[in-house]
Amino acid sequence: MMRRIADVLKQGQPDEAIEVQGWVRTKRESKGFSFLEINDGSALANLQVVFPEQLPNYVDLIKRLNTGASLQVAGVLVASPGKGQRIELKAATVTLYGEADPDSYPLQKKRHSFEFLRTLGHLRPRTNTLGAVFRVRNACATAIHQFFQQRGFLWVHTPIITTSDCEGAGEMFTVTSLDLKQVPQTETQGVDYSQDFFGRPAYLTVSGQLEAEIMALAFTNVYTFGPTFRAENSNTSRHLAEFWMVEPEMAFCDLEGDMDLAEAFLKYVFQYVLEHCSEDMAFFNTRIDNSVLATAENIVSHEFVRLTYTEAIAQLQKSDRSFEYAVEWGLDLQSEHERYLAEELFQKPVIVTDYPAQIKAFYMRLSEDGQTVRAMDILAPKIGEIIGGSQREERLEVLEQRIRAQGLDPAIYWWYLDLRRYGTVPHAGFGLGFERLVQFMTGMTNIRDVIPFPRSPLNAEF
Amino acid sequence: MMRRIADVLKQGQPDEAIEVQGWVRTKRESKGFSFLEINDGSALANLQVVFPEQLPNYVDLIKRLNTGASLQVAGVLVASPGKGQRIELKAATVTLYGEADPDSYPLQKKRHSFEFLRTLGHLRPRTNTLGAVFRVRNACATAIHQFFQQRGFLWVHTPIITTSDCEGAGEMFTVTSLDLKQVPQTETQGVDYSQDFFGRPAYLTVSGQLEAEIMALAFTNVYTFGPTFRAENSNTSRHLAEFWMVEPEMAFCDLEGDMDLAEAFLKYVFQYVLEHCSEDMAFFNTRIDNSVLATAENIVSHEFVRLTYTEAIAQLQKSDRSFEYAVEWGLDLQSEHERYLAEELFQKPVIVTDYPAQIKAFYMRLSEDGQTVRAMDILAPKIGEIIGGSQREERLEVLEQRIRAQGLDPAIYWWYLDLRRYGTVPHAGFGLGFERLVQFMTGMTNIRDVIPFPRSPLNAEF
Repeated sequence: MMRRIADVLKQGQPDEAIEVQGWVRTKRESKGFSFLEINDGSALANLQVVFPEQLPNYVDLIKRLNTGASLQVAGVLVASPGKGQRIELKAATVTLYGEADPDSYPLQKKRHSFEFLRTLGHLRPRTNTLGAVFRVRNACATAIHQFFQQRGFLWVHTPIITTSDCEGAGEMFTVTSLDLKQVPQTETQGVDYSQDFFGRPAYLTVSGQLEAEIMALAFTNVYTFGPTFRAENSNTSRHLAEFWMVEPEMAFCDLEGDMDLAEAFLKYVFQYVLEHCSEDMAFFNTRIDNSVLATAENIVSHEFVRLTYTEAIAQLQKSDRSFEYAVEWGLDLQSEHERYLAEELFQKPVIVTDYPAQIKAFYMRLSEDGQTVRAMDILAPKIGEIIGGSQREERLEVLEQRIRAQGLDPAIYWWYLDLRRYGTVPHAGFGLGFERLVQFMTGMTNIRDVIPFPRSPLNAEF
Repeated sequence: MMRRIADVLKQGQPDEAIEVQGWVRTKRESKGFSFLEINDGSALANLQVVFPEQLPNYVDLIKRLNTGASLQVAGVLVASPGKGQRIELKAATVTLYGEADPDSYPLQKKRHSFEFLRTLGHLRPRTNTLGAVFRVRNACATAIHQFFQQRGFLWVHTPIITTSDCEGAGEMFTVTSLDLKQVPQTETQGVDYSQDFFGRPAYLTVSGQLEAEIMALAFTNVYTFGPTFRAENSNTSRHLAEFWMVEPEMAFCDLEGDMDLAEAFLKYVFQYVLEHCSEDMAFFNTRIDNSVLATAENIVSHEFVRLTYTEAIAQLQKSDRSFEYAVEWGLDLQSEHERYLAEELFQKPVIVTDYPAQIKAFYMRLSEDGQTVRAMDILAPKIGEIIGGSQREERLEVLEQRIRAQGLDPAIYWWYLDLRRYGTVPHAGFGLGFERLVQFMTGMTNIRDVIPFPRSPLNAEF
């Protein structure tokens, strides 16, 4: 019976007749038999398969079964006399599907740098580390859906192609069906968008929030989980041009409810991954960052710190640290400030709330003081901001004023304003950068190593 | 205690003290009290709330609580003496959040055409039909994730921005950071892509299949579920410029395994929606298409018909129907042919296999006959093709020949070919148009009514 290697390693018993399929990771030839480690991607660990020399075509077969080759093996499980595994498979019938020439196959047993592996986007999922990353990524994604679905949230698909700019900021990619060699121009020297697919300028979305608000004001609780884009020319280990975001949006919810949900959400996802990917997480803790397990357990078992921006500024000012950037009420927190709060002062996730209005987006709810908005950022040790959220401005007149104050045209936001005109309610939501979460979970330092096919300046291969 | 209306309608008991929140759907004033129907999007049905005139500010409150207004109500559940509901809520405390001016709020009680509602993308989720559509859409999506996760498939995020064209066909949107007013040109009159974000032409993906193959050849079983794009200038009820696709890909799998999975998959999703959205499905059956329940049950309980393209051609030729398009071996099946097979001849989903090589994509596995490829299309009554899949060509030389034969350059597919060079295995997969599935499920005739924010020629509002 065909079995996943993950299941065989966990549940397989001596004398069971099974079949597995997979790719050779290593080969060790010995007198009278050979050991091959086989992996099918279902688990980090390989299944050890013993090939006795009595097998038909043994010599030729072993010669051809090099690292990377694919095969199917039928045989019987036996208790393993060797160290490192409970059971092993004694091969009886072998089908070799595809070879991998050891002279040219790039993934030989030695370790490769992540930088080198990025040039092999089509093969790197076959390595231990990237394999573990993508299994953890899948577990995170599954946990996210489960968390929201159990609470009655609808997954809503907000548009990728958009004609509006969520925050009135951020560099956006243009989407067009025009021929770039000959972009039609109008008489007044502008682009003739009437000939473009959508009849006007169109972009790749930077956030599904505004459309998620539409859906929350019909279904109460919704979330998005999809790709978003930034055409920012940042060639760093922290930025991607294409990344996945999770954006829940809740009607009849204020900032306290928003923070409660965000904290429960992070705890749930970490708990889920600890339970479902224990082998992969142990691997990250051993090989990548020896604090990931402690961090995960810290998140699951402790309440997050909550303090206002004003309190955070006071804490920073009274610390004996000298910061590169000024600490002053009204200025945004810089990465060094966020790290000080989360890594040094509190040593756990910190929720900073009630930021000055002038450094936050127009849609955040203005407080009674007229100075701050009901925003919150969750700062995590090592990662910095992992979640940003707010209660939304639900008052029509205030929202219109805020849009104008930021130099934006309310007419563009007609439908967003309509949500306040007809049946408006207090509502709130947050955004989570999914790759940041996977980085946080695994300890991987470069964001390009937690998404299968990273897009960044000058890089869109595969 | 705050409750979802869906839960109250299902489990609420007389004498329970509860709170609900939502939007007014209808108001009926009577002597001494008023009835308001409240909806929070969690269910199709409304909760009837009785407002006795003893409430503080009763007259003013009822005057302001028009269709579309938002409120919170606390009170006690009572058995309903009226028809149409088991229980109702007797209001004790009411908070009005937001009014909806009856003179301007567009969603008054009368029925609106779907065409009109499309101009109100920000409000139409609050209508009965669109509400039911998006709940069913969410249930379909959840069923899809559950189906694959239970079987050990990884959800993989394939790139949206791509520099390759999956099928060497199809109109693609260009993605650029260049200023369309002044696109830089090289001396030889071409676009100077060195100044563009990715340093070369980039597009929105039409399929994640090729990248899903990369992942399947590391993890054995994977699936994509994400947005895909076509810049096709088709202003029809069947086409979208942006739509969601589900694409499983399985290593060590042939066309039979592919068909088995596709059939099990469709049955699972239909069964799940019948169980979890019974109220919404009954609504579609009554109001939209009185065959949707029978169709769903037919799919769940009957084996799909499987026949080869060659057999299908023979069936079409011997039928007494006169078709507009020619029926001849080597020509593609047209919509009228597909409908005849699925709706008239077999009256259930039909899987047509083994199409002529020349009408199918290069990556489909060439059969021994040298004439056909191991492709399969699942044709559904009313919808036509709902799934298209194939066993992939895993033989390096054959694949190279097929790429060349279609006038494509193998160099562009270097990494795709590498998958056949190193550890190649038989593998297969299929693609499902998610919106087509939701249409099939709900009976909605226009595809723009099953996605929250449809994108089509000259249309990218919201």
